[in-house]
Amino acid sequence: MKRIGILTSGGDAPGMNAAVRAVARKAMHEGLEVYGINYGYAGLVAGDIFKMDPITVGDKIQRGGTFLYSARYPEFAQVEGQLKGIEQLNKFGIEALVVIGGDGSYHGALRLTEHGYNAIGLPGTIDNDIPFTDQTIGFDTAVNTVLESIDRIRDTAASHERTFVVEVMGRGAGDIALWAGVAGGAQDIIIPERDFDVKAVAEKLRASREHGQKHAIIVLAEGVMHADEFSEKLSEYGDFHLRSTVLGHVVRGGSPTASDRVLASRLGSKAVELLLEGKGGVALGIEKNEIIAHDMLDLFNHKHHAMLDLYDLNEDLAY
Amino acid sequence: MKRIGILTSGGDAPGMNAAVRAVARKAMHEGLEVYGINYGYAGLVAGDIFKMDPITVGDKIQRGGTFLYSARYPEFAQVEGQLKGIEQLNKFGIEALVVIGGDGSYHGALRLTEHGYNAIGLPGTIDNDIPFTDQTIGFDTAVNTVLESIDRIRDTAASHERTFVVEVMGRGAGDIALWAGVAGGAQDIIIPERDFDVKAVAEKLRASREHGQKHAIIVLAEGVMHADEFSEKLSEYGDFHLRSTVLGHVVRGGSPTASDRVLASRLGSKAVELLLEGKGGVALGIEKNEIIAHDMLDLFNHKHHAMLDLYDLNEDLAY
Amino acid sequence: MKRIGILTSGGDAPGMNAAVRAVARKAMHEGLEVYGINYGYAGLVAGDIFKMDPITVGDKIQRGGTFLYSARYPEFAQVEGQLKGIEQLNKFGIEALVVIGGDGSYHGALRLTEHGYNAIGLPGTIDNDIPFTDQTIGFDTAVNTVLESIDRIRDTAASHERTFVVEVMGRGAGDIALWAGVAGGAQDIIIPERDFDVKAVAEKLRASREHGQKHAIIVLAEGVMHADEFSEKLSEYGDFHLRSTVLGHVVRGGSPTASDRVLASRLGSKAVELLLEGKGGVALGIEKNEIIAHDMLDLFNHKHHAMLDLYDLNEDLAY
Amino acid sequence: MKRIGILTSGGDAPGMNAAVRAVARKAMHEGLEVYGINYGYAGLVAGDIFKMDPITVGDKIQRGGTFLYSARYPEFAQVEGQLKGIEQLNKFGIEALVVIGGDGSYHGALRLTEHGYNAIGLPGTIDNDIPFTDQTIGFDTAVNTVLESIDRIRDTAASHERTFVVEVMGRGAGDIALWAGVAGGAQDIIIPERDFDVKAVAEKLRASREHGQKHAIIVLAEGVMHADEFSEKLSEYGDFHLRSTVLGHVVRGGSPTASDRVLASRLGSKAVELLLEGKGGVALGIEKNEIIAHDMLDLFNHKHHAMLDLYDLNEDLAY
Repeated sequence: MKRIGILTSGGDAPGMNAAVRAVARKAMHEGLEVYGINYGYAGLVAGDIFKMDPITVGDKIQRGGTFLYSARYPEFAQVEGQLKGIEQLNKFGIEALVVIGGDGSYHGALRLTEHGYNAIGLPGTIDNDIPFTDQTIGFDTAVNTVLESIDRIRDTAASHERTFVVEVMGRGAGDIALWAGVAGGAQDIIIPERDFDVKAVAEKLRASREHGQKHAIIVLAEGVMHADEFSEKLSEYGDFHLRSTVLGHVVRGGSPTASDRVLASRLGSKAVELLLEGKGGVALGIEKNEIIAHDMLDLFNHKHHAMLDLYDLNEDLAY
Repeated sequence: MKRIGILTSGGDAPGMNAAVRAVARKAMHEGLEVYGINYGYAGLVAGDIFKMDPITVGDKIQRGGTFLYSARYPEFAQVEGQLKGIEQLNKFGIEALVVIGGDGSYHGALRLTEHGYNAIGLPGTIDNDIPFTDQTIGFDTAVNTVLESIDRIRDTAASHERTFVVEVMGRGAGDIALWAGVAGGAQDIIIPERDFDVKAVAEKLRASREHGQKHAIIVLAEGVMHADEFSEKLSEYGDFHLRSTVLGHVVRGGSPTASDRVLASRLGSKAVELLLEGKGGVALGIEKNEIIAHDMLDLFNHKHHAMLDLYDLNEDLAY
Repeated sequence: MKRIGILTSGGDAPGMNAAVRAVARKAMHEGLEVYGINYGYAGLVAGDIFKMDPITVGDKIQRGGTFLYSARYPEFAQVEGQLKGIEQLNKFGIEALVVIGGDGSYHGALRLTEHGYNAIGLPGTIDNDIPFTDQTIGFDTAVNTVLESIDRIRDTAASHERTFVVEVMGRGAGDIALWAGVAGGAQDIIIPERDFDVKAVAEKLRASREHGQKHAIIVLAEGVMHADEFSEKLSEYGDFHLRSTVLGHVVRGGSPTASDRVLASRLGSKAVELLLEGKGGVALGIEKNEIIAHDMLDLFNHKHHAMLDLYDLNEDLAY
Repeated sequence: MKRIGILTSGGDAPGMNAAVRAVARKAMHEGLEVYGINYGYAGLVAGDIFKMDPITVGDKIQRGGTFLYSARYPEFAQVEGQLKGIEQLNKFGIEALVVIGGDGSYHGALRLTEHGYNAIGLPGTIDNDIPFTDQTIGFDTAVNTVLESIDRIRDTAASHERTFVVEVMGRGAGDIALWAGVAGGAQDIIIPERDFDVKAVAEKLRASREHGQKHAIIVLAEGVMHADEFSEKLSEYGDFHLRSTVLGHVVRGGSPTASDRVLASRLGSKAVELLLEGKGGVALGIEKNEIIAHDMLDLFNHKHHAMLDLYDLNEDLAY
């Protein structure tokens, strides 16, 4: 193998650049040529492909977003698009592809492998909703960004003795809400993975207020419902001086944390090692601190599981 | 004069604690006794008043929010409430009051002075919408918090070549939008103080995209309209890959910037100096780097003016 | 068991407050009474002990340092001090003790268990130099603080095409240097766990400069030597526009990261569970994402191992 | 006038990129062509000059350091170098030059004007040591970076009841120390502009400890002496649990604050306006919130004055 390609796809996540850098540097270190593909699968099909050198990925490890750009490209679900993509890769002599993204991106990579083209997937999404990995690239940064916002909101909540409902990203997964909730000392965490009872939430709030804890923060995963809707339901059970706030796209960006950069570096390097061993058709993840490869097909038969121990832990620690 | 009181009122703002500390420390330095009043005018009327010592305000300068709490208390618009407040102040032997807050808070202070009770107002609000001061306590912090969010959003905007409409706080004033917009390199800034033409915004965006600037950030003051509404209007003129996001209460909190802490310290200290000189019935502000006192009544006959030069500046610098 | 005590000892670490909160809240949740002990073993011996309620640990999870204070107290190495400590615990009816700190703190806890008093240790130190745990409370925050500094220094390094030697804390361990170095895109990482050759470092730097990478950052663990000393040695091999900087105590403080707060919460809660099961004399840690208890005595027969894979990874990714 | 050039010189400062962007964008807006000169005067003499377009300065406003690079170049003190620089400017048809930097950079610009070449200086340095400007580009960011460090150090100081001596940059000026000291709630601020008495510092510390304020932070300007030297002197008067720390180059970098970006934008835009009016040979500054031009020669006959009111203010507020 002499040439590999890299693309980022789906929603951007902090650490994607660190992963691209790691793939590129490791591959160059091993004597490979590296090509960057702009705009994900859209750029792949369009042939928006360029040769990288070591400086290309210099001064990128600390940057949020993805300097290879990303784009939605539903057309890649069609065989025609996939074959066109492989044609472009062949034209540039690129023998294997590393795809960094979420589950949609993995679908694309799986299709390529089904056509006999070698691809490896790296989990890059803030949502942490990928099976076979304890953490995705971008998750730790997103949690810390949410946490910083919760810490700020607490200032106002405490000053005015209010209850804040803070809606956070995560699509169908509750992971961001769960981690940020525990770390933020949330009174309650509302996630899709667990049933909730608004009345019980209200009663806990009331009890807490009676015992002197006058402000509270409730972290709500966007996959459950909108913050305003939740606040409305909650306010049926009493006056908790409610305010709701939605942490939107601000959570996607920013310089990646150390943990995300190290994870991205480990995953990117491992991807190159596997490709050099002739392996592919796999998705990498970190499980119990080790970088593990799983057959890509397996991913679609498994579900990601949030660390629900944290949910129970929070129940015990909230007051 | 032997005893003064301090309260914070209205929406909390970063730097309020630094102002309380400055008033307290300066007063103690001058041999006065200092009383803190919790929950603004509500606490004043209720007599929620306590004696401070130097340690009370220790380790507070860096904290967001207000450790004296704040509360809405429309009842203070009634003479009855005002007299009850003065009664409480007299009961504790408090001879003058420093009020830190926004224009609602100033109304309360003005009423007290009209009843012959000496009060001084300090401008504490993130919105910067107070006359006779170039900056309010909390404004610089809020602008920097918004700016940090814009910097994060730019990562996603650039990665996906999107246009983001970012709605920011400020009530009827465009100051936060203006400063954060200039500092954030906004393509456009939409504020209540200036008319805008959605079609012109769209044309600029289109021209900018054609010239290679594929992403853009539009900063919108909440006093104009909601981000979703603006986005809807804008999308009538073309597809700009629009996303809108609202920076809500997260902007109110957080540790104050150096500038806000220094401003709060200067204002707090000056308030005590004036009270010792027997002056009162004034609101303090900073104009051209100097701490200035204005008759409180004057404030209600004047309007705050945003620094609209910045608007024109941004027009020239955006591309 | 009805009453437990908590103390923090040794150098402060971000997340200690989150751990204290978790121990206290979990214990109260289980119906126990909780006592805080100020100033570590010094306060224990002096009887500086107070009863906590749920509000005591409210609004603390986000705070750096330790609100229970810490202190050096070498006298606790003497049997006399230990027995005096147990006497105090008995006086307050405290039946078990949770100690949060580094290896010195563990020695104290081990002595108590040898005297038949039940104690559990939680790893709280920025240095990550404790056996049987992949991460200590405070490590992730310290790494991110160092990383933020490296990101800033890179601005100057890049602007002036300089090489910076950045010395970081860690006592005898290279963990902080290792993680911050990988995450910071260091050209080289110098740690006690690995030999280094100044000449080879210089040659790599020279090659890198010749290939167009004009600035570089070298992360140096304080356990190896001082930054100035290293810079002097390095400058014998060429002019690399060297500057050296030491990141000192600034790295110990600050609000803990999400990861540190979650880890602290999990460890604190588990400690209470174990005490309720009648277990003790153990030190807790996190291994492969699970909270594990090890006999405290074992700790002193084992060494902490830095994750040296990261060292090799960095060699491959640097340019 | 059709073409202008820009260079940055001397130590890098956050906001330099925002200033370069403002000069470039404003000039292009006015129909001028803009050339960037790399590496300051060194690049000028060497002809390291390139044409900018609007995208060149895109996505730069938030970046620390200077993307035009900077370099020391004492040779520019010689007439020969100056004439060579003008020759290069003429070769590229550049009719006027904007120089962003500190006083050394101003000397260069003054020489050019003495040779009849039009140049304008913008104050870019973290040290704030330029006459005729209340603030320099980079100062506000540096103060906030120092402040963030002081806030972190306070965690450790409070946890261990220590006194920290924090040495900060500023060359011969005390401005950074002064602002960060007031904002950080320093017990004492030691600056070159004011005499100090170690014994008095010690006595204040002792009194403060006796009154219950067990930790303290002393901010020391590097222009006075080294932190270790100061600590040694102070420890002759008692045991204050002293630690000293030096905030070095970490203070120069980082993303500029809103205030620095707005200031840089205003200054850069004004420079172009003046050049278009045919004015030059001036240095710009901000005084009482207005952008003012002073004859460059005047600068060398005046001294910068730190805002010493803040020193007295801190004396009153410290405890």
